[in-house]
Amino acid sequence: MDSADLQALRTAIRCVPDYPKPGILFRDITTLLGNAPMFQLAVAELSRPWADRQIGHVAGIEARGFILGGAVAHRVGAGFIPIRKKGKLPHETVRVAYSLEYGLDEMEMHRDAIEPGEQVLLIDDLIATGGTAEAAVKLLRGLGAEILAACFVIDLPELGGARRLQALDVPVHSLVAFQGQ
Amino acid sequence: MDSADLQALRTAIRCVPDYPKPGILFRDITTLLGNAPMFQLAVAELSRPWADRQIGHVAGIEARGFILGGAVAHRVGAGFIPIRKKGKLPHETVRVAYSLEYGLDEMEMHRDAIEPGEQVLLIDDLIATGGTAEAAVKLLRGLGAEILAACFVIDLPELGGARRLQALDVPVHSLVAFQGQ
Repeated sequence: MDSADLQALRTAIRCVPDYPKPGILFRDITTLLGNAPMFQLAVAELSRPWADRQIGHVAGIEARGFILGGAVAHRVGAGFIPIRKKGKLPHETVRVAYSLEYGLDEMEMHRDAIEPGEQVLLIDDLIATGGTAEAAVKLLRGLGAEILAACFVIDLPELGGARRLQALDVPVHSLVAFQGQ
Repeated sequence: MDSADLQALRTAIRCVPDYPKPGILFRDITTLLGNAPMFQLAVAELSRPWADRQIGHVAGIEARGFILGGAVAHRVGAGFIPIRKKGKLPHETVRVAYSLEYGLDEMEMHRDAIEPGEQVLLIDDLIATGGTAEAAVKLLRGLGAEILAACFVIDLPELGGARRLQALDVPVHSLVAFQGQ
């Protein structure tokens, strides 16, 4: 991506001070999603490194990862897998617990969503501490997926999520990095 | 859509008996989403009628409407607007209440998500009673949108949702109809 495109993507992301609580500068991707050229650019750039790879499925993390994941799956010609908060999927699932700021939650996917050995691209809008992404990696690998990469529009590198995934041998592809939380 | 394609889409939707409660036959779209040719077909057919129209934004209803809405926005070259459950959007919102089986809930969108007068395509995976779709229509029209159509993969016509939207002068475009609940 050239530097003008990168700067345009950065500028399309709205900064909301003190959300969801005082002292946090929230990176709001809805302004990028709503900007047609920037949405197309983000989807193209998330997809570009895998143009010559055989992608079995694109997996998106609920809920914002569904928007980008659906678009990337359409662009690369793959099927889409939703990784959801617990209790939302109607068929037999596999579950994994992950840490939130206070306590634990669980996410799940359908047990029959992938074939062992297939290559999966994991998509979310943003990586911060990497807790949900790591949980998604565990779910997918538990069913035999090879994770081609985890892809994010936004990385907050100081929170360590990308390093956490790389330590699991998951390649990380992000488009825009912001310092701070 | 020819009848072989239509039959293929129908077959790709899994039926889950007694979910979420006894007596309900749940139409599970995840098997269609995960099937690459069927996902591409559904996105193409949802988008096809609007090929020569100027679409300002595609609005998707949380959460499954995000998957198809993101893909349709990518296909038609529009930006995407998330219509979310309350409390999930960081900037100034507009809200509307809608009825659930027991009680009320609210959904919201960002107040600055659209320009008055623009044409918006509303997307969700399924229309049943039409309660959430009607709420989404109210939000979008309240901000001055012209709703080009509401598009769904699945219609359950006995539940009356499509008629409810048509009574509001919203054209309804659905791909597959199933009798019963």
